[in-house]
This record gives sequence, structure tokens and C-alpha cells, in this order.
Amino acid sequence: MGTFDVESTVGNQLAGSDRLARQLSFILEIDKAKNVLRRSRILDESRRENDAEHSWHLAMMALLLSEYANEPVDVCKVIKMTLVHDIVEIDAGDTFAYDGPSHDDKEEREQKAADRIFGLLPEDQRDEMRSLWMEFEKRETPEAKFAAALDRLQPMMLNFFTKGSTWREYDIPKDRVTSFNEHMTHGSAQLWEYAKGLIDLAAQRGYLRP
Amino acid sequence: MGTFDVESTVGNQLAGSDRLARQLSFILEIDKAKNVLRRSRILDESRRENDAEHSWHLAMMALLLSEYANEPVDVCKVIKMTLVHDIVEIDAGDTFAYDGPSHDDKEEREQKAADRIFGLLPEDQRDEMRSLWMEFEKRETPEAKFAAALDRLQPMMLNFFTKGSTWREYDIPKDRVTSFNEHMTHGSAQLWEYAKGLIDLAAQRGYLRP
Repeated sequence: MGTFDVESTVGNQLAGSDRLARQLSFILEIDKAKNVLRRSRILDESRRENDAEHSWHLAMMALLLSEYANEPVDVCKVIKMTLVHDIVEIDAGDTFAYDGPSHDDKEEREQKAADRIFGLLPEDQRDEMRSLWMEFEKRETPEAKFAAALDRLQPMMLNFFTKGSTWREYDIPKDRVTSFNEHMTHGSAQLWEYAKGLIDLAAQRGYLRP
Repeated sequence: MGTFDVESTVGNQLAGSDRLARQLSFILEIDKAKNVLRRSRILDESRRENDAEHSWHLAMMALLLSEYANEPVDVCKVIKMTLVHDIVEIDAGDTFAYDGPSHDDKEEREQKAADRIFGLLPEDQRDEMRSLWMEFEKRETPEAKFAAALDRLQPMMLNFFTKGSTWREYDIPKDRVTSFNEHMTHGSAQLWEYAKGLIDLAAQRGYLRP
């Protein structure tokens, strides 16, 4: 992306203010999320999903499923969290849910990424983005717990409705899917019930190792 | 996507309520936006952008650039509009900005698409989604005008920072880019000033036919 860096400087001269220039640099930078590939396949199984698409899909789920949150949530805040939650993966990469070792230094990699990427923004917006991301990561507020539940449900749905494409590829056993995802119940007991049904049926059908 | 339709029936049995089943059907259906290709290329020029990625990018712009709207806007509503605005293209396809003929029956195609796709949802949410989409299309409210400005700015930025990739491919003249996009000024005079700067420089550099 060398060309892009040179060009963005030109763009910044056109912005007319340092503030807008920084905002536009960030907006150009996050285009890279379109190239951060996840393990999940999209429903037609033609290819893996990227972070930008995944974040849009979650934001739509937040918009439509907030009635199933355990506690009342500020839907707009949930949507913002889903939009922002994976931006650090531009530098830190996607960490596969069922890959143990790469989780070890995940936090350090992601904090560094947040410093650099959110740091492109004016300070007030840098702090706002970082705070949305940290809130999501900590899973303490009703909004964060619900956003995290959606972030677990979406790949399970993609997996189930592609006959377990990623689960089969990595030979994932049912109990690992259950234990990795059961925190969903803190955000939405009702959506976790649905997810458990998907997991059971997936195991019965051989989409998952029983 | 025949398999997917059969499978979604199974998923619906697991949902436990007709309401959740309909919501999940819609959420599965809109996965197809990940395969609706636009003319714009992503910044590394490796491929064309799809509607899901584009909508996420716009939602991030709405989150960060609302201070440049001509009138005060409800940011959350702008974000929701950007998330929803291209869903009808799942059936109706993307209509290229600079392609005259395909604009003739665009409205009819898109109304039909809205009937089918938003019609998958429970009635209250069907009406909410359709109303967000119609508001965006009409460009009458401050939120719609601003969302439409972002929807014009984003592909111009992708084009400029890929040295006019789509403009050159279709040999688009500068005056068409100006006339097609100048409604941006009704949503954000300041972002339109920036865009005009990009267009001028693009023409000087040969990214656009002068």
C-alpha cells in the first residue's frame, strides 16, 4: 500500500483542516479491513468472509435483534461497537476462535494496533473509538455483553448454514464450540438457546465432531 | 443458494418463535449483499468492493464525520440509513453512477426488491427498514441528505486514491463526475468542497477525462 500512503498526503492538503485530514486518513486506513479474512465462509461458500462485511452483518443484527438482549440496551451504542470491534485486526490479524496459541499475545498485539490505528484520528475521536472497543472487549456493560453475543452467533450461523464448513475444515469438537460460545448467555439467554440448538443439530448431522 | 433455502427452514424450527425465525431469515438473506459487486475498487486495487463492505465503510464515515453535516443530524439515524441503503441491490443489482440506461427502471426494480427482502421481517421491522431506505432515497431530511453525501464521497475517495481506477476504466469525463455528485453540497457543503478538490486534481493528473 505504498502508493496509498503518498496519495493520502495529497488528499490531506485538500482537506483544508488538520482535523478533517486526520479523519479522512483514518477512513482511508480502515479500508484495509476489507482484506482481513476471517475463518468463516459466506453463505454461498464461495470464499472466506472479511472483517468489513462481518462488522456490517453484526451491525444489522444489532439493529434487528436488540429485543433479545437480557437487559435493556442502547441500540445505537451496540451498533457502534459492532462497527468498530474488529478494526484493530488490520494490524493484529484475525485470531481464530479455536486456535489456542494465537490467543496468548492477542491482547498485546491488539493494544498496539489500537494505538496506531485509532491514533490517526483527532484526540477526541481516538478516545471515543478506543473506548467503544475496550468496552466491547471487557464484556461488562449490557451493550458489550449483547454485542459479544452477536459476534458469537453470526459465525455459528454461517457455519451451520454452510454445513459446518469451518468446523469440518479444522475438525472442531462440539464441546469446544459450546464452551467457547456459552458466554453468549450473558448477553442474550434467548439467542444462546437458539445457538445451542444449532450446535446440537450440527453435531447430529456431522457438521461438528460429536 | 438452493441448499441455503432448505437449511433456513431447519433453522426456523430452532428459533422457537415465528418472530425470531423471520428475523433470522432476513439476517441470512442479507448475507447476499457480500456478493453484490460495485464498480469501485478497494484501495489496494486487488478487486471490486461489495455492498456489505461499502455499507460498513459509510457507517464508519457517518460515525466520524457528522460534524460536517449542514444541519444538525441524528447520527444514529444516519448510521442506520447507511447500513440499510443498498440492501435492495441484492435483487435489483448495483446501478453504476455513470450508466444512463440502467437508471430508467431502477426505481421499479428497487421497489420490488424492497417488497421481497424487507418483507421477510416481522411487519414492524419491515416497515422500519423500508422507511429508513425510502427516507435515504428521497434525500429530503437532514439525515438523508448527509447520508447521501457520504454515499457519493466514499466512491470518489476510492477512485482518487486508486488513481482513478473506475473513472479511467469507463473513460468518465470530469463534468459528469461533478454534475452527478454536486448534490453532496445539500448534505455537507464542506465535504463537497473537499470532493471538488479531488475532482480537479484527478482531472489534472489524468485520473479523469478533463
